[in-house]
Amino acid sequence: MDDVQIIDVSPRDGLQNEHVIVSIEKKIKLIEMLVESKIKKIEATSFVHPLKVPQMSDAEYVLKSCERFSDIEFVALIPNMKGFHRATKTKIPEVNWVTAATETFNFKNIGMSIEENFTQFKQLMEESGKQNIKVCFSIAVSFGCPYEGDVDPENVLSLVERAIEAGVQRIGIADTIGIATPKQIKELLTEVLKITKDVPVAIHLHDTRGMGLANAYAAFEAGVRIFETSVSGIGGCPFAPGAAGNLATEDLVYMFERMGIRTGINFEKLLEAADFAASLTTNPALGRIRHIEKAKRGV
Amino acid sequence: MDDVQIIDVSPRDGLQNEHVIVSIEKKIKLIEMLVESKIKKIEATSFVHPLKVPQMSDAEYVLKSCERFSDIEFVALIPNMKGFHRATKTKIPEVNWVTAATETFNFKNIGMSIEENFTQFKQLMEESGKQNIKVCFSIAVSFGCPYEGDVDPENVLSLVERAIEAGVQRIGIADTIGIATPKQIKELLTEVLKITKDVPVAIHLHDTRGMGLANAYAAFEAGVRIFETSVSGIGGCPFAPGAAGNLATEDLVYMFERMGIRTGINFEKLLEAADFAASLTTNPALGRIRHIEKAKRGV
Repeated sequence: MDDVQIIDVSPRDGLQNEHVIVSIEKKIKLIEMLVESKIKKIEATSFVHPLKVPQMSDAEYVLKSCERFSDIEFVALIPNMKGFHRATKTKIPEVNWVTAATETFNFKNIGMSIEENFTQFKQLMEESGKQNIKVCFSIAVSFGCPYEGDVDPENVLSLVERAIEAGVQRIGIADTIGIATPKQIKELLTEVLKITKDVPVAIHLHDTRGMGLANAYAAFEAGVRIFETSVSGIGGCPFAPGAAGNLATEDLVYMFERMGIRTGINFEKLLEAADFAASLTTNPALGRIRHIEKAKRGV
Repeated sequence: MDDVQIIDVSPRDGLQNEHVIVSIEKKIKLIEMLVESKIKKIEATSFVHPLKVPQMSDAEYVLKSCERFSDIEFVALIPNMKGFHRATKTKIPEVNWVTAATETFNFKNIGMSIEENFTQFKQLMEESGKQNIKVCFSIAVSFGCPYEGDVDPENVLSLVERAIEAGVQRIGIADTIGIATPKQIKELLTEVLKITKDVPVAIHLHDTRGMGLANAYAAFEAGVRIFETSVSGIGGCPFAPGAAGNLATEDLVYMFERMGIRTGINFEKLLEAADFAASLTTNPALGRIRHIEKAKRGV
């Protein structure tokens, strides 16, 4: 039994910001390498507008190819009901509904107010139940917003409360621009976990300012057991200035395993996936442990 | 009143591993910039064998030049009594005595067994009292050794206990090769602080594997209030393979200030010092926040 679950989001958050289109073959190769490293849950793609995020326009094809991987939970991000309806035509078992903690970010990211978004979300909860699709409710910019600055934790907690009332299957708290401090993580996640009780909570981490691992540790100490990261730290939100990149999955796995926290992941295989992921992006990759020679890793 | 004390060790640990000799003028310029950023304690140099570490052969001259800076506590590292006797000829108020948690590292670093080192340390404690020089007892490789691997925390705790009994004025726990995990930091420092009581304890952090900030946070949570870091993360021990570089002072100050923990440091001035420090080394500098444009720093 693993102590924590790592959801690798590199095929989605890692690549969506990459302006050079990555072929479906390479995306599937990345997913295959993640599967080989024993990552058991992967955010494979998103159903967003193909003109806004061309990199994700192949969502259906990617998911179709993913059907070959058994025992892996795939997730697709959706920004609205249109995305959900596309998702229902695939065999995706879980969708990640994204809202934001601030009005400006919500509008820039998905073109709706938070209330409009929540109205659609309730509709989603009705339809997803009938379709037997699980829903994660993710709150972007939960710790700081590139447009509005500081975020009132109450805004996040109130959204969490309403999503739980609506019967959601998972909550995602996202530090979309890598601005959170360990103190914020500890305080907010402690409160979130009081509300969510048995509903699993994931923390989605970016490493923009180098605090990603410190934040992961603070989240773990607060009781969080699901972490969304991206191999080699590639990625970032195209509508969030300064969001690149995600916390590197391999750095987190390294830290956890060294702390005796079981991830169930094959670290050497994961490094291979990280090297491959880094080769897919024109942005500099952030991960650290990849650059330490094996003999000095101390694992 | 500051909540934490940051000791910048860049003029010593940051430069000692640099093979191109940095001029005294540039070293003093770095120290001056640190002083301007309101760093109040600086490890300025070390009294080591000039043939083994040529970069530090100007120790007396550097300290002489430091006499112009009032209200700054300077520290010099010393590996043996010979170094101490050189130090006594300057106006240095504190020396940092270095031992190691493992025999192999101690021998490679200072050519003595731990017991020989401790015998000399007791002699130091006698002499330093007469000279009115404060002593810090620092334990290198407290969390992992490049030669012996895992380190038994009991070895560290026993050295701490003996140094406290000998009447030392400060204890330094060093993660010389940046191998510690937040779990190790939390566990060991919690035990160290039980022994040291009123004697101040510093944690000396490296960021080799990217865990520096997470470790700093864990140390703070354990109760540590003194942090030894190096602007722009330059540095590493010449006798510790894989030790480069130190945790970047500005990354730590950034995290602390964003958490509401007062460092008393002028962040913008500190960034200038960090940029200058980075220009002094031929090794890649590690710091992260230096590379984030001001508008996106969120401070």
